[in-house]
Amino acid sequence: MADTDRAKLEAALKAQGELVRRLKAEKSSKEKVDAEVSKLLSLKEKLGLDDGKQKFVLKTPKGTRDYGPKQMAIRERVFGIIVEAFKRHGAETIDTPVFELKETLTGKYGEDSKLIYDLEDQGGELLALRYDLTVPFARYLAMNKISNCKRYHIAKVYRRDNPAMTRGRYREFYQCDFDIAGVYDAMIPDAECLKIVHEILTGLQLGDFLIKVNDRRLLDGVFAACGVPSDKFRATCSAVDKLDKLPWEAVHEELVGEKGLTQEMANSIAEYVCLHGGRDVIARLQADERLVGNSGEMQDEQKSARAGLADLDLLFKYLEIMDISTQVQFDLSLARGLDYYTGAIFEATLLAPENAVRQDDGSAPSGVGSVAGGGRYDGLVGMFDAKGRRVPCVGVSIGIERIFSILEQRSEGQSVRTTETQVLVASAQKGLFDERLRLLKELWAAGIKAETSYRISPKLLSQLQQAEQSGIPLVALLGTEELAAGTVRLRTVATRQEVEIPREKIVEVISKS
Amino acid sequence: MADTDRAKLEAALKAQGELVRRLKAEKSSKEKVDAEVSKLLSLKEKLGLDDGKQKFVLKTPKGTRDYGPKQMAIRERVFGIIVEAFKRHGAETIDTPVFELKETLTGKYGEDSKLIYDLEDQGGELLALRYDLTVPFARYLAMNKISNCKRYHIAKVYRRDNPAMTRGRYREFYQCDFDIAGVYDAMIPDAECLKIVHEILTGLQLGDFLIKVNDRRLLDGVFAACGVPSDKFRATCSAVDKLDKLPWEAVHEELVGEKGLTQEMANSIAEYVCLHGGRDVIARLQADERLVGNSGEMQDEQKSARAGLADLDLLFKYLEIMDISTQVQFDLSLARGLDYYTGAIFEATLLAPENAVRQDDGSAPSGVGSVAGGGRYDGLVGMFDAKGRRVPCVGVSIGIERIFSILEQRSEGQSVRTTETQVLVASAQKGLFDERLRLLKELWAAGIKAETSYRISPKLLSQLQQAEQSGIPLVALLGTEELAAGTVRLRTVATRQEVEIPREKIVEVISKS
Repeated sequence: MADTDRAKLEAALKAQGELVRRLKAEKSSKEKVDAEVSKLLSLKEKLGLDDGKQKFVLKTPKGTRDYGPKQMAIRERVFGIIVEAFKRHGAETIDTPVFELKETLTGKYGEDSKLIYDLEDQGGELLALRYDLTVPFARYLAMNKISNCKRYHIAKVYRRDNPAMTRGRYREFYQCDFDIAGVYDAMIPDAECLKIVHEILTGLQLGDFLIKVNDRRLLDGVFAACGVPSDKFRATCSAVDKLDKLPWEAVHEELVGEKGLTQEMANSIAEYVCLHGGRDVIARLQADERLVGNSGEMQDEQKSARAGLADLDLLFKYLEIMDISTQVQFDLSLARGLDYYTGAIFEATLLAPENAVRQDDGSAPSGVGSVAGGGRYDGLVGMFDAKGRRVPCVGVSIGIERIFSILEQRSEGQSVRTTETQVLVASAQKGLFDERLRLLKELWAAGIKAETSYRISPKLLSQLQQAEQSGIPLVALLGTEELAAGTVRLRTVATRQEVEIPREKIVEVISKS
Repeated sequence: MADTDRAKLEAALKAQGELVRRLKAEKSSKEKVDAEVSKLLSLKEKLGLDDGKQKFVLKTPKGTRDYGPKQMAIRERVFGIIVEAFKRHGAETIDTPVFELKETLTGKYGEDSKLIYDLEDQGGELLALRYDLTVPFARYLAMNKISNCKRYHIAKVYRRDNPAMTRGRYREFYQCDFDIAGVYDAMIPDAECLKIVHEILTGLQLGDFLIKVNDRRLLDGVFAACGVPSDKFRATCSAVDKLDKLPWEAVHEELVGEKGLTQEMANSIAEYVCLHGGRDVIARLQADERLVGNSGEMQDEQKSARAGLADLDLLFKYLEIMDISTQVQFDLSLARGLDYYTGAIFEATLLAPENAVRQDDGSAPSGVGSVAGGGRYDGLVGMFDAKGRRVPCVGVSIGIERIFSILEQRSEGQSVRTTETQVLVASAQKGLFDERLRLLKELWAAGIKAETSYRISPKLLSQLQQAEQSGIPLVALLGTEELAAGTVRLRTVATRQEVEIPREKIVEVISKS
C-alpha cells in the first residue's frame, strides 16, 4: 500500500472520527445545556435568597397580560351582559380542561394547526392547550353520547399567533361561545344564534354593527359555476376569505398566481362575490341557472347551492319576524377561515367610527374588525364518534378581547369602581380598633360589604381619603363622645353630611341605605 | 503496510462509517417519525371523513374532567357564595395568564417543583403552567410596584400529581384565593382571613369544621428548643407536616432515620407538637423558658418564638371579638408544606361525618382533609423586586374541588336545574311557528328567559314534557282558537292549571309571575 493511500485512508478515518465526535456532541449537547442551565438557575436562586436582589425578568409571557382590578371590573360587566343573553335563550353552561390530548386537536384547524401550544412530553400523555372551544365541545358531545344540547362556554383559548395587543389580539384570550347541537328544523337554531349576537352587541352599546351571512354550500356552488375544479374549492375559499382585509386585485392575483385558477374563473368569481343585500339578492341568485341549474338537469353543486339559497331565504324570513333583518346582510364574499363549517356562516363587524383603536406601532387608528363569528358545522362531532353518528351543530363565538379593547380605551381617565364596599368603619380617636371590629362583625353578619383601616390608630383624614378614593359611599364614624352617648355618626361621602344614629340602629340604617 | 494493518484500518473505517450512519439516523429519526405520524394522521383523517369511523381516544387528559351542566350549576352556586364573602370584605379581583415564564416559578415550591407542567419549547420563551395563584400574585405586585392590595383570584392551577378524583384531587383544579398585601398593624389582616374562611364554610353549609392555626416562627423556636440544628428546621418542618396523615411513630422514625435527628430531639418535639387549644396553651408556652428564654438572655429563635406567641395571642383576641374563636384551635403540629410562609399559618378541616367520601379504589370512605389553608408570606414579593423591597402578605386559599366533591355526591339522584328558563312558548297545532317566534321576540325584549321547540310543528305532548324535564315553570300555549280570540293560554307546569290571557297582556303577566 502506497503512503498516499495510507495517508488518504488515515485522513478519511480522522475526518470520520471528527464527524462521530461532532454528532455525539450534538446529541448530548441538549442534555448538557439543560443540566448547565439548571445548575446556574439554582446557583442564581441561592445567591438571590441571600442578597434579595432581582433575579427575574418581570413580565408576563409574550402575547399575554394581567388583568388589574379596573380591567376586571369592565370584564365582569361585559361577561354579565353576555351571560344574561345566553341564559335568556335557555342555555346551560359546561367547562372542559384547558388542555386536550394532542390527537383530539389534530386535523381540525388546517394551516392554523402550527399555532397550537404543545405541552412538554414529561412522560405520559401528549397534551396541547385548546385552540378554541368548538372542538372540545364536539369531543364532549361525542364522548358523552349527547345528541342535543344548548350550551354556552366562556373560557380562555391559546394561539401562538403574532400578538397585536392594542387591537385586542392576544395569545391567551377569552372566547364566549354559544352553540346549539341537535337534529332540528332548518334555520331555527341558526336564526337564534344571530338574534343572540344582535342582543349582545346592542346590550354592550358599542354603536352600529352589521352581521354578514353566507352559506358554504352556496360558495361551493359559485366556485363550480365559475368552472373551478372541486379539489380547489377550499383553497379558493381561503383566498376569498381575505377580501375583508385585501382589495379584490390582491385576491385575484392570489387566485390566479398561487391557487392556479384561470383569468376567466377569477373574473367570474368577482362578479359573484361583490353581491350583497337581502332577500332580493337571494331571489336573483335563485334564478341564476348557471348557479342552481334548472329542474331538468342539476349537478351536485347546483343542488347544494339551491339548498343553501333556500335556507338563507328562510333565515331572513325568521330575522324579519324578529325585527333584526336590517342589521343583517347577505354577503357572498364572506368565507370564514375554518375548515369545519358546512352550511350557514356569519360574522359581525362594528361600524361606528368611535370604535377605531390605536395601532401597536402608533400609526393611524383602524377598525377592530370582526367581533363575533360562527356558523353551522354538521360534521365535526361525527369525526369523534365511534359510529360516525352525526350531530348537527350551529354556534357563534363573541370576540370578547376586541370588545374589551374598545371599552378599556373608552374608560381611560375615567374612574371605575373596583370594589362594592358600602361602608367604611372609621374612628375619630386612637384606641378604638376593638370597637370598629365589633361593628364590622355585625355589618358582615347582616350581609353588608364593609371595610376598616388595617391600622390600630389611623388618622381620621387618611380614613376619609380612603373612602373617597375607593368610592365607598358611607363612613360609619366611631368616636369617644359618640361611644359614651351610645351613637355612631354616619357620613355620606358625596355630600359630607353626617347624621347621628343610635348604635343599636346603625346596622339597620346602613342596610336600608 | 501489512495486510493485517490495512484490514484493521479498513475495519475501523467501516465500523466508524456504521456509527456515523447510526448517529445520523438517530438524529433524523425523530423528524422522520414526526413526518410519518403526520402523514398517517392526515390519511386517517381523510379516510375518517369518508367512512365516519372513530379515529380518536375519546377522553380528557389524566387527572382532568369536563364539568357538565349539573356540575356547573353546583360550581356556580359555590363560587357565588365565595365571591360574595370576598366582596363583603372589600376585595378587588385580578387575573393573570395561565402560564408564566418558567423562571418565575423556579425556586418557589421546593420539592414540589417536579409537579410543574412545562410547555414545549416551540421557539421563544420557556413557559410553564401556573402551580398556584400566590406566586403569580407576588410577581404581579412586584412588576407593577404595588405596595398594598386586597384581591381575590379564582382560577385553575396545574399540578402533575397523582390524581384521586373521587376525593377531589385533580391535575387541573380551581383555587379561590384571597390575599391582603401591605404594611399594616399586626394580625389585623390575618384575623380577617380567618373570618372569611369561617364565613365561607358556614355559608356553604358543609357541617362542623375546625380551623387550626400556628406560626412558623414558633415552630422554629420549638425545633431550636429541642436542640435541632437550624439547617434541619425545614426538613423537620416537612416531616412534622405529615402528622395529619401519619401517626406520631411514623413521623418519629422519619425524623430520626431520614432527617438525622437524635432520639432526644424527636422526643422533645413530640412533647410540643401534641399541644393544642386556645389562649391558655399560648400562655403556658409564653412561660416556657426553654422556648422563649428569659428577659436576661434570649437567642434569635427565642425572640422569634416570643414574637410568634404574642401575635397568636393577639390573633385570638380579635377572633374572640368576632365570635369565631370556638372554631379556631391553636395547634403546634400544624406545619404546612410550602417554603414561603414566614409567620401565621392556618388550615381548615371539615369534621362532620357526612362529608366522608368514596375512595378511588372502592375501599372505605375517609374524610376529605383540608378544605382551606394559608398563612403569612412576607418575603415572596421581595424575591421578585429589583430592590428587594418587601411587601408583607397574608392570604388564604379555599380548596374548592374537595367542596365540589362533597356537594356533587350529595346531589346524586337529585334534580338540579341547569337553566333559568321561565317560560316555554308552545303551540297546540301545526303551522304556528311564526306566531311562537313573534311572542318569543317580545318576551326576550322584556328580559324574560324564554325558549321554544326548534321544530316547526312539534307535538304538544313533547313540548309539555320538555317543560317538565327542564323544570321550566310556565308554558305559554298558542292555539288556533286562542289566536282567533286574541288570547294565549298560560299553563303553570307544577299544578297543570291554565288561564286564558289577552295576547297583549301576556308579556306583562309573565313578567310579574
